[in-house]
Amino acid sequence: MTTAAALIALDWGTSSLRAWLLDRTGAVLARHRSAHGIMRLPEGGYPAAFAAATEGWDRSLPAIACGMVGSAQGWREVPYLRCPAGPDALADALDRDGDIAIVPGLLWTGDPNGGSPPEVMRGEETQILGVLALRPDLRERSLLVLPGTHNKWAWVAAGRVESFNTAMTGELFAVLRDHSILGRPAKLAEAPADEAEAGMAFRRGFDAAWNAPDGVTPLLFSVRTLVLTGQVAAAASLDYLSGLLIGDELRAPLRRWNAAGRPPVVLVGDPALCARYAAALEWAGVAPGVPVIEDAALDGLRRIARSAGWLDAGVPAGGADTEGEATA
Amino acid sequence: MTTAAALIALDWGTSSLRAWLLDRTGAVLARHRSAHGIMRLPEGGYPAAFAAATEGWDRSLPAIACGMVGSAQGWREVPYLRCPAGPDALADALDRDGDIAIVPGLLWTGDPNGGSPPEVMRGEETQILGVLALRPDLRERSLLVLPGTHNKWAWVAAGRVESFNTAMTGELFAVLRDHSILGRPAKLAEAPADEAEAGMAFRRGFDAAWNAPDGVTPLLFSVRTLVLTGQVAAAASLDYLSGLLIGDELRAPLRRWNAAGRPPVVLVGDPALCARYAAALEWAGVAPGVPVIEDAALDGLRRIARSAGWLDAGVPAGGADTEGEATA
Repeated sequence: MTTAAALIALDWGTSSLRAWLLDRTGAVLARHRSAHGIMRLPEGGYPAAFAAATEGWDRSLPAIACGMVGSAQGWREVPYLRCPAGPDALADALDRDGDIAIVPGLLWTGDPNGGSPPEVMRGEETQILGVLALRPDLRERSLLVLPGTHNKWAWVAAGRVESFNTAMTGELFAVLRDHSILGRPAKLAEAPADEAEAGMAFRRGFDAAWNAPDGVTPLLFSVRTLVLTGQVAAAASLDYLSGLLIGDELRAPLRRWNAAGRPPVVLVGDPALCARYAAALEWAGVAPGVPVIEDAALDGLRRIARSAGWLDAGVPAGGADTEGEATA
Repeated sequence: MTTAAALIALDWGTSSLRAWLLDRTGAVLARHRSAHGIMRLPEGGYPAAFAAATEGWDRSLPAIACGMVGSAQGWREVPYLRCPAGPDALADALDRDGDIAIVPGLLWTGDPNGGSPPEVMRGEETQILGVLALRPDLRERSLLVLPGTHNKWAWVAAGRVESFNTAMTGELFAVLRDHSILGRPAKLAEAPADEAEAGMAFRRGFDAAWNAPDGVTPLLFSVRTLVLTGQVAAAASLDYLSGLLIGDELRAPLRRWNAAGRPPVVLVGDPALCARYAAALEWAGVAPGVPVIEDAALDGLRRIARSAGWLDAGVPAGGADTEGEATA
């Protein structure tokens, strides 16, 4: 094991930029975090943001980045790689045409006959590879759920992402809360809901949408009417809305999950949000205690860098390797 | 027939106020329109808005108003009347406690066992009575569709509103267009879509959602991915979204409509929006040429005023009676 720097790794998304300086084993020598996501670049744009994130580091080292930095609005556009795709295919498809190598996003062309539209992701593919690096038992067959703004449900088989679906639940919740009539009762509430009240409202919303024969849209206005008729407290109305949207989101993938023989399920993302999904997954029939992995971006970048020959193969010594933290 | 003024009628909604001075037959002697909806009141509030709308009119006459003026944020709150309810019940429930009489909104308590939440309307009940006054053939049994911000699907039987459902399609479309990632492609489009392209995108969205086994939410992100993959023009992406949302909206009520023996269907509201719904209803199996009634608020106010004794019973002479205009 050496402490000589070997690689700069970057997770460069819409609203934040994280950078790590790694040695050849993948151990972290230094790290940096800023708000210079692709929508919040400093003066000087991408080169300036990269320079600020790597100040004092040897910029002649190879650098690898994942995320929206490879989108049409990014540093340069990197074409999507088609599913199914695994770590070696992503490493082979690394775009090395600029100052930094960029991991391509993934495209699933969809199944027009089955009513599935095309799907795209940028950044999540690296999280997924990281999870599979941390959890070899998930490689053969699993369902990875990545809640956030645009939630991804990724179906893994034989170490590759076979296909995936997007649910805009996070963004839908935010726009309804902030810009529609459904956000009003909570704003007018005199005090926040207590935990029990919020939990009951979340469950009520989940049950209503999970059992809805026509999806969630016929139920949305009930966020207002259940408050008007005294059945849901105004302060808990957004918990009810959250339950509605998550109950709705789970219906299609859980049917497929049952049909696929109930492979292992793992949640990846913000722990508080993942806790909501863990509860909902349990109500939907998944065994309690769905594992939550908060962040596996660095693990995924390492995995690709090993395939690309920038890091030594094999598991590095020392505990500094693993950024991702498995809980529950 | 006399030209002596007998009644002031007001349609007082969220963003506009309309007032009419009527004689005892219901003929219009004068009219006024302003932007003094309940969210845009002038200095002096409700009394000032009422005074401005009726300037030069005899304010000692009875006055009747419908709409959000009777809500918790209105001039005074008038409790909802429960469905089923018809014109006489609404007249009996008129709130006469203030300077103006206010038509109550309607409440349908829903069907918890069938997964139907409670529903409320304020203003649409008067439109519906107006339609039934204009079209006696619809009284026995019909489905009235009122597209707008919060669309109402009202089931009429024996001259009364039996029950109704709300679809937030209009508001959902607006918040997704204005505040979500789905509105971006259209903003970036260099030129507007031509009519054929827009029509095809609308139809594509309709078909996708109409046939979707799990509602529209799993399809929302396709507004983005179909543009990214070159399958829908950026300029037509909002037409595709509109088709998605309307196709989704029609599924539940059209199933019920088929089960109910396919009663007559009428659209009430903005003609351009109703034209979209007329096309979609035809794709969903309703006979072509669904009638569109642009506005029947005044007809509804007259109907209630007749029950209340402020106007003469029966159909007035002259063409000035009918504000609502049936087309197609």
